[in-house]
Amino acid sequence: MHGLHLTADLFDCTCEQRWLTDADAVLARCVALVQAAGLQPVAQLAHRFPDSPHGPGGITATVLLAESHLCVHTWPETCSATLDVYVCNFGADHSAKAQALRDSVVALFLPQRLHAHALHRGQAPSPD
Amino acid sequence: MHGLHLTADLFDCTCEQRWLTDADAVLARCVALVQAAGLQPVAQLAHRFPDSPHGPGGITATVLLAESHLCVHTWPETCSATLDVYVCNFGADHSAKAQALRDSVVALFLPQRLHAHALHRGQAPSPD
Repeated sequence: MHGLHLTADLFDCTCEQRWLTDADAVLARCVALVQAAGLQPVAQLAHRFPDSPHGPGGITATVLLAESHLCVHTWPETCSATLDVYVCNFGADHSAKAQALRDSVVALFLPQRLHAHALHRGQAPSPD
Repeated sequence: MHGLHLTADLFDCTCEQRWLTDADAVLARCVALVQAAGLQPVAQLAHRFPDSPHGPGGITATVLLAESHLCVHTWPETCSATLDVYVCNFGADHSAKAQALRDSVVALFLPQRLHAHALHRGQAPSPD
């Protein structure tokens, strides 16, 4: 279960509006980007939130991977989004593929600013 | 999009085997724990991985929330699991609910050791 969990919080996205509001379009693109990165999608799910007085609702899109998961959330009212790419390195090191996937999803949203983070997971603490 | 992303990597889980291998059971329990924590499930998805020569396949279970998401992965061959609880604090501070949810999911797996992490998300970097 050793793995790499990459996150990115995206601000001032300058992409087409549909990438912030069209759950089916984002999900289909995410699956394609997963495949392009050489990772294996096994299931997928998206949800569109209702519109509000502030504007159109955001979306959540997630792709379950043989290697773990990708998840995207959007906030169209602030042109922002967050993404998670988590890969377990069971059997092979998928870190480079995870980084390629994160970069390609970031490129979809064209953020003017972003905050990225990498968390190494599955490192067992020492026994008591 | 300010929020809190809690992770926990669980080792030497002493729970009943079904919590590591029964995707439907884990998903149903996760939805119940989300509701018990006062968070709002909006969609859910689970996947069971095929059995291997090492033993029964693991599972992934995810619950999309109005507040963001919960995701659980298991590795029955090593009695381990990882979980993510990510809540956006749009409109209200859901941090305490996220911590309660993480604690209740951890309790399901009865790990002998765990590594927990908290990431504060959505903090915009300074403009260039």
